[in-house]
Amino acid sequence: MKEFELISRLTQGLPAHPAVVAGPGDDCALLDLGIPEKWAVFKTDAVVEGIHFLADTAPEAVGHKALGRVLSDFAAAAAEPVAAVITLGLPRNYEVAWVERLYHGLRALADHWQVAIVGGETTTNPERRLISISAIGTVARHQSVRRTGARPGDALFVSGELGGSLAGRHLTFTPRLKEARWLAEHFQVHAMIDLSDGLASDLRHVLDASKVGAEILQEAVPISREARLRSKAGDGAKPPLIAALTDGEDFELLFAAASADAVPILDGWKSQFPGVRLSCVGRITEKPGLHIRDRHGLRPVSDHGYSHFA
Amino acid sequence: MKEFELISRLTQGLPAHPAVVAGPGDDCALLDLGIPEKWAVFKTDAVVEGIHFLADTAPEAVGHKALGRVLSDFAAAAAEPVAAVITLGLPRNYEVAWVERLYHGLRALADHWQVAIVGGETTTNPERRLISISAIGTVARHQSVRRTGARPGDALFVSGELGGSLAGRHLTFTPRLKEARWLAEHFQVHAMIDLSDGLASDLRHVLDASKVGAEILQEAVPISREARLRSKAGDGAKPPLIAALTDGEDFELLFAAASADAVPILDGWKSQFPGVRLSCVGRITEKPGLHIRDRHGLRPVSDHGYSHFA
Repeated sequence: MKEFELISRLTQGLPAHPAVVAGPGDDCALLDLGIPEKWAVFKTDAVVEGIHFLADTAPEAVGHKALGRVLSDFAAAAAEPVAAVITLGLPRNYEVAWVERLYHGLRALADHWQVAIVGGETTTNPERRLISISAIGTVARHQSVRRTGARPGDALFVSGELGGSLAGRHLTFTPRLKEARWLAEHFQVHAMIDLSDGLASDLRHVLDASKVGAEILQEAVPISREARLRSKAGDGAKPPLIAALTDGEDFELLFAAASADAVPILDGWKSQFPGVRLSCVGRITEKPGLHIRDRHGLRPVSDHGYSHFA
Repeated sequence: MKEFELISRLTQGLPAHPAVVAGPGDDCALLDLGIPEKWAVFKTDAVVEGIHFLADTAPEAVGHKALGRVLSDFAAAAAEPVAAVITLGLPRNYEVAWVERLYHGLRALADHWQVAIVGGETTTNPERRLISISAIGTVARHQSVRRTGARPGDALFVSGELGGSLAGRHLTFTPRLKEARWLAEHFQVHAMIDLSDGLASDLRHVLDASKVGAEILQEAVPISREARLRSKAGDGAKPPLIAALTDGEDFELLFAAASADAVPILDGWKSQFPGVRLSCVGRITEKPGLHIRDRHGLRPVSDHGYSHFA
């Protein structure tokens, strides 16, 4: 059973709570805590040694990644993070120096985005290090973005370049908070998600939540240099396009907006964020499912890539 | 290095953030998110298999304990929890039935206190199960209680009975949210904490935060039946008083209030909460340190108990 299937099963039938605007199933939970004109935004995430980082990964980079993943979810909601709490699971005889370097990385990113670290717990996790981070923040009610609002005819956009993140970017990425805030302030963003599982998989979350389909243009997918390089690594390496669709941990934004806004968005973005590519990669369709178009025609895409023509 | 020393070292020198009212070092963080007359309250905690519960502990009880610990921290701040997010660390081939039963326990407690579960993540933690829970809520600004306000002359109170929690109560305890709200609404509670490490250790946190000392009356310490029974278990068993002071995981309230309020508090509590004992166990002193008074006189108390007379 996949993670999101399990969680959706477990959280089904939860009693309605008057404060809940968006619960499980979106990047962040949205809550009405009585802040005038704003929702409170709430999200948790964890990274584990041997899964999300290695025992010899620089601890500063582990801290950056652990907090960066949560901030990337705030970006997907066009929200502003305010404060975070950290739980560290550590072996019994942990190295204090490792923890200090972890906090150095955490704090550098937290300070950059003015996120206050307001609580820390440590617990014993004998076999491996684990970092669990929760953050809260706010978003203007009329600017909050979820996964549910994509409409047929919308243009689909992706920031940055995709694939090959494991070469290093998964530890050093910049959460797209600034870009997301700019989008929400200047345009009607219909739906947004951050790319953690890969374009094919994360776009499907948006399509499921919005009850629509999508068509991606193969040549428009922004493939990273690392994905191209790694594809040459030899047998068994993914073709670059498949890497861009399925590698995951890109932590870029994927969003849908009215096609009439496509040119203003692309032009505005280019002048605001000259260092970050923005690509219009396709469109939302009434027809369900995810398809990719190349010079041979249209074919379905699975979470693992797409089926080749025989 | 003890956990709280490490965390206090790591969080020293964090840049001041305008939204932070209380950061690391209290039971919960208090934040100004712009809610009229209220602070937002934020807390995280985790339980780990083999540390806080056993592989064969009933999963429903694990869920109860995991969320109950966080709610107990909300009680210590006299706050109302609103929503929680859950991160589960699970072995690769985890049993879905175990997770479902865990959620059953979690949800029963959450529903009872009208706490919405608004997010769930799962991650791989290959060797053991781990449950990390964060919650947010609110507290009226003028009713919020911290560890810092105890004053010389204050009376010290403890709810319930202490010691021997491992016999079962650590899995079934009721977080004292109702009692704490009642206290904050009717009295000036100067300082409060929930008893997770044991009276000796947790009282010291209050004394350190409030820069005062305290004197406990030995005969006033409410010793649980389990602590008395276990003391008869044979050699090496703790004497009942030491168990009550140091066992931990009582999840009862310890608070300080003006001595003039002692009788109204005790009388009011008895009529409001006839099923929960409230004991006045001592007083706050100007003289630093923690001491216990018995028929032989006054002696210092350490986190591990007290020194016997030679």
